[in-house]
Amino acid sequence: MSKIPVAVLAATGAVGQRFVQLLADHPWFEIAAVTGSARTAGERYGDSVRWILTEPMPEAVANLVVQPTEPNLDVPVVFSALPTVEARELEPAFASAGYAVVTNASAYRMTENVPLLIPEINPEHTALIPRQQERCGWPGFIVASPNCSTTSAVLPMHIFDRAFGLRAALITTMQAISGAGYPGVSALDIVDNIVPHIPGEDEKLENEPRKLLGRMSGGELVLAELAISAEATRVPVRDGHLAAVSVRLEEQATPEEAIEALRAWQPPAIAAELPSSPAQTLVYRDEADRPQPRLDRSNGAGLAWTVGNVRRCPVLDLRYMALTHNTLRGAASGAILNAELLVAQGIIPRP
Amino acid sequence: MSKIPVAVLAATGAVGQRFVQLLADHPWFEIAAVTGSARTAGERYGDSVRWILTEPMPEAVANLVVQPTEPNLDVPVVFSALPTVEARELEPAFASAGYAVVTNASAYRMTENVPLLIPEINPEHTALIPRQQERCGWPGFIVASPNCSTTSAVLPMHIFDRAFGLRAALITTMQAISGAGYPGVSALDIVDNIVPHIPGEDEKLENEPRKLLGRMSGGELVLAELAISAEATRVPVRDGHLAAVSVRLEEQATPEEAIEALRAWQPPAIAAELPSSPAQTLVYRDEADRPQPRLDRSNGAGLAWTVGNVRRCPVLDLRYMALTHNTLRGAASGAILNAELLVAQGIIPRP
Amino acid sequence: MSKIPVAVLAATGAVGQRFVQLLADHPWFEIAAVTGSARTAGERYGDSVRWILTEPMPEAVANLVVQPTEPNLDVPVVFSALPTVEARELEPAFASAGYAVVTNASAYRMTENVPLLIPEINPEHTALIPRQQERCGWPGFIVASPNCSTTSAVLPMHIFDRAFGLRAALITTMQAISGAGYPGVSALDIVDNIVPHIPGEDEKLENEPRKLLGRMSGGELVLAELAISAEATRVPVRDGHLAAVSVRLEEQATPEEAIEALRAWQPPAIAAELPSSPAQTLVYRDEADRPQPRLDRSNGAGLAWTVGNVRRCPVLDLRYMALTHNTLRGAASGAILNAELLVAQGIIPRP
Amino acid sequence: MSKIPVAVLAATGAVGQRFVQLLADHPWFEIAAVTGSARTAGERYGDSVRWILTEPMPEAVANLVVQPTEPNLDVPVVFSALPTVEARELEPAFASAGYAVVTNASAYRMTENVPLLIPEINPEHTALIPRQQERCGWPGFIVASPNCSTTSAVLPMHIFDRAFGLRAALITTMQAISGAGYPGVSALDIVDNIVPHIPGEDEKLENEPRKLLGRMSGGELVLAELAISAEATRVPVRDGHLAAVSVRLEEQATPEEAIEALRAWQPPAIAAELPSSPAQTLVYRDEADRPQPRLDRSNGAGLAWTVGNVRRCPVLDLRYMALTHNTLRGAASGAILNAELLVAQGIIPRP
Repeated sequence: MSKIPVAVLAATGAVGQRFVQLLADHPWFEIAAVTGSARTAGERYGDSVRWILTEPMPEAVANLVVQPTEPNLDVPVVFSALPTVEARELEPAFASAGYAVVTNASAYRMTENVPLLIPEINPEHTALIPRQQERCGWPGFIVASPNCSTTSAVLPMHIFDRAFGLRAALITTMQAISGAGYPGVSALDIVDNIVPHIPGEDEKLENEPRKLLGRMSGGELVLAELAISAEATRVPVRDGHLAAVSVRLEEQATPEEAIEALRAWQPPAIAAELPSSPAQTLVYRDEADRPQPRLDRSNGAGLAWTVGNVRRCPVLDLRYMALTHNTLRGAASGAILNAELLVAQGIIPRP
Repeated sequence: MSKIPVAVLAATGAVGQRFVQLLADHPWFEIAAVTGSARTAGERYGDSVRWILTEPMPEAVANLVVQPTEPNLDVPVVFSALPTVEARELEPAFASAGYAVVTNASAYRMTENVPLLIPEINPEHTALIPRQQERCGWPGFIVASPNCSTTSAVLPMHIFDRAFGLRAALITTMQAISGAGYPGVSALDIVDNIVPHIPGEDEKLENEPRKLLGRMSGGELVLAELAISAEATRVPVRDGHLAAVSVRLEEQATPEEAIEALRAWQPPAIAAELPSSPAQTLVYRDEADRPQPRLDRSNGAGLAWTVGNVRRCPVLDLRYMALTHNTLRGAASGAILNAELLVAQGIIPRP
Repeated sequence: MSKIPVAVLAATGAVGQRFVQLLADHPWFEIAAVTGSARTAGERYGDSVRWILTEPMPEAVANLVVQPTEPNLDVPVVFSALPTVEARELEPAFASAGYAVVTNASAYRMTENVPLLIPEINPEHTALIPRQQERCGWPGFIVASPNCSTTSAVLPMHIFDRAFGLRAALITTMQAISGAGYPGVSALDIVDNIVPHIPGEDEKLENEPRKLLGRMSGGELVLAELAISAEATRVPVRDGHLAAVSVRLEEQATPEEAIEALRAWQPPAIAAELPSSPAQTLVYRDEADRPQPRLDRSNGAGLAWTVGNVRRCPVLDLRYMALTHNTLRGAASGAILNAELLVAQGIIPRP
Repeated sequence: MSKIPVAVLAATGAVGQRFVQLLADHPWFEIAAVTGSARTAGERYGDSVRWILTEPMPEAVANLVVQPTEPNLDVPVVFSALPTVEARELEPAFASAGYAVVTNASAYRMTENVPLLIPEINPEHTALIPRQQERCGWPGFIVASPNCSTTSAVLPMHIFDRAFGLRAALITTMQAISGAGYPGVSALDIVDNIVPHIPGEDEKLENEPRKLLGRMSGGELVLAELAISAEATRVPVRDGHLAAVSVRLEEQATPEEAIEALRAWQPPAIAAELPSSPAQTLVYRDEADRPQPRLDRSNGAGLAWTVGNVRRCPVLDLRYMALTHNTLRGAASGAILNAELLVAQGIIPRP
């Protein structure tokens, strides 16, 4: 099969670079265009970017000329690493011009009829796309990935919801510095310190899971009935968002039953067969001191959830710790997996 | 007033050193003896200790000869920095020999009739001492300080309990490496990492506040009726334990009312007048990103609580973040404050 | 004595804040004005600044209105924390308008007739001031402090120069993140990493000591004949610049003789009596593993040099390690000490 | 070709684990035995070890029973990760019993007739082995790897020696915490700090390069005539030893000529063809701020040297920065490469 040409919007930033690196050898996609700000447009990508990844810059992309972020690119699919403000303006312009917009930005995550997707959790939400196209009068469409902090906490919530019914979740996150982009967090703010607040993050954590765990009904998405309380903190860790979560369930479950539900869970077949899908989506560790960011963030090439320490919560019902790699599963890799799902479902046509 | 001679038990360890440093210029106490292990006994203190504090070692103490930890010291008061196992055996021996044992160890914290003290919270619990002496047949006695993680979370719990009634608390801590003593945590375990488990710590956090918030009734201590769920983690921060707490109250309170209760709170007069008592025991910060360990751990010379980000909890009732310095308020300074309280109450006689 | 009113130029930045904090209770100086950028001018200082120090902002200064950085301030002395580019333009304007400009900026450090001062090393260099005034036609003048990395290495160089003659120095520094200001270094660049280059820093290290160690001759400053090789690196340490130095001497000296020279050295009387002068300017530590940034940076309230590990260098003659606090001795405190020297010498008149 | 069975001595420690992980899929070697202390002998390896690597423990090894470290193992080759004191006693016992001992320990590095090997630098030094066997009366033999700090600095020294003649080197290292093993460095000693001394390390750095750069003459090894001055420091970096080096040359060379010599250098053919040999042994980076530990330590799967910032030294002749991964090239991978060399040279027979 020949590959689907794609563009990366805002390819010079931290998330954009990750898209570029991950798509370099992708079996289905091929980078045909990269866009950047007015300042970098017209330059060779390799000259315009301050490359911050340890993996080398793919040579084919280094030689592309950076284009302005305008909907006149010769590709059917764009991966958006745009900052929120620009995403708000430009993503609809691309959808309106017929592009499939696969975004990592927050601008349209909670917008009606925009699927907020994790292929292993809610692949059926792509059924919202025709309605989105119809309501907006767009030939193209937007699909979004959740915030990286939401991602870390949400898979066990989903599994417990299916197994026992989920009524509430109380979340405290410890988030890595790479989540703030580059240059992002000043070293003076975080070395030997914790910053117990990340603007806007608590709200995302309190809202996005309700959409991810929602159910399709009559072509509409019904948000999950679910109270969530969240507190996001920034800690001196490079990569890997750790979430301490307590949940209240509809049906009582012992920790042993909950662990059994986690271990027994399998992603839907369509998700499991995607090319980037990890061999094991959820790794449960029995040791009391896991997951740890440094030891577990790279599980499944950064696409696996690692969960541990499920035990009784004396206030709600169960507690657990969950971890994902925030720039891979929580950002670029997660969005690529969404695009793969759209191809597998036939929504993005194969060439 | 001439000073009360005191001894520091296990004076060469991390907490023992802190006792030595803090007592160097104390207005009421004077170090007359230091004890150590069989290995160091007989050596000059200055030669036997690997001093890990930035403050210089007090010269008068450096010249003391380390004594074995046996109840034949010529002082009425001993500060115990003993490890738990040794504390379990030796602290009763000292109490039985007539010493006032002011301990930082966990061995007897939850033991009936042993006051678990924070002078600003429950100074009246020293009324348990005569009962302890009677039941054990001891001329001396033991009073204990809570665990450093308990300390960080508990003052707002106490204030909310008095103001609105406290029914439950859900706590996630981010604890500093100095809490594990020296050498304690391996750098390989914590640089660029979080260890989401500290053995025994969750249990302490779930039990000790019930005793601290208990009420004296007919000479007995009645534990507070209170469900607590705790998860303790270790983060790459040198000093300062941060606790993210959600509470359920008996009477509804808005965040504004809760903040007002925190700001209006004053410690009991007897606590406020102790020589080590900070000018301001509770510092409330309005900024959403406070308290931060590095910026707030030294408030009140390390004896203040810093609290911030009180807001509505969508699952329980209120959330907040609280911080204390774990080796000062949470360990040595806290125990010294307990000894000062005993002097102020006349339980330890002035010379 | 009533105090000398002073202004802090660029008072909202990292170094400016440090000036404000240190001058709050100064016995000789009193802040009468603070200046800032066009953006902040006109605002209350307390509202315009993102305060990054752990010490609280002095209230009297918080209530000052930020003024534009223009030479119409009603003070005789200005402390400059201006960025290099602005310093280049504005400092002569102030000198030309009659102000004593005590600067921490690099713009004029190597300019002829501008004294580059460390009071303990070269207080006699202030004799350049009249010549500066004459040549430039200024009623005021500029005196400069050396770069923070130069400062850390230079005091033992000076002492060895006086004792044995210094012919060459080979320096490798390990510099703290606070040396780059705020926000300065991105956490992603420095957590679990070293950046082995700081733009412009090697040149400063290779040039400034030649001026500091120069001698006055016939009213002119003769630079020291001295070859210096320097490599500056940035390490994940908050505060404290550590320098590993090898020196070649004119007269052979054993490590023991060199240590004796360090221990015997006393600052000139005029420097020792300045109000900010530390009780002990040079602390020599015998332990092989000192100086350490965390343990030694605060010696002498951040104004002392800590030196250790003097030993034979198999390639040159001697090696040593030296440390100073980069934002105190190496920046704001050092400049304040320079101003105190000017008062003590009668160059800045007392009121 | 069937594989050569090997044993790992002291397989449960930090270096031992790395040997186990790296040999798991080795094309020439296969782990047939692992040894440990009296405490762990008899246990299943998987149960006896506290695994500290992020890579999973190889299952085949996990099921081996830990044996005591005695020369009765059914393998021809042993990889020694023994602590120095035990290596001193046990490695000769193994050599005397006929084993090829490939060691990472320091005990016999500088011993006459024990080759101290880096295959890319001095593969011809294995000619010492017959003389070692003859003098000691051993059917087996010992070959050693240099200290991890020596390794980081030495390849450019070798290249410059061959190209221009090397007369002196002045080295300051910034070494990672993993170099001290596990638990090794206490977090309290290194977070926000540098420890400017590592016991014994300066001596190794000052001696080992003279052996590595020595020349065989009449069957004897003649040490290089070379003055070395070294200062080793420990910095808060997980992996990767960085060395700042100044060299004096016999023939003058410009930085450009030196860089050209580095770029033109190729390892000897026998080294380049070893199975673990990296595609590029020396990576020269043009950017002034490289090499950086985090960005460059994994070059060549942790077996490459990364060098940068070659420039004129105003005191000696040239300066440069060099980096290697201390637990890979500097320890386990380096020793495995040595064993591969012995096989390629026919000294260890293929099965």
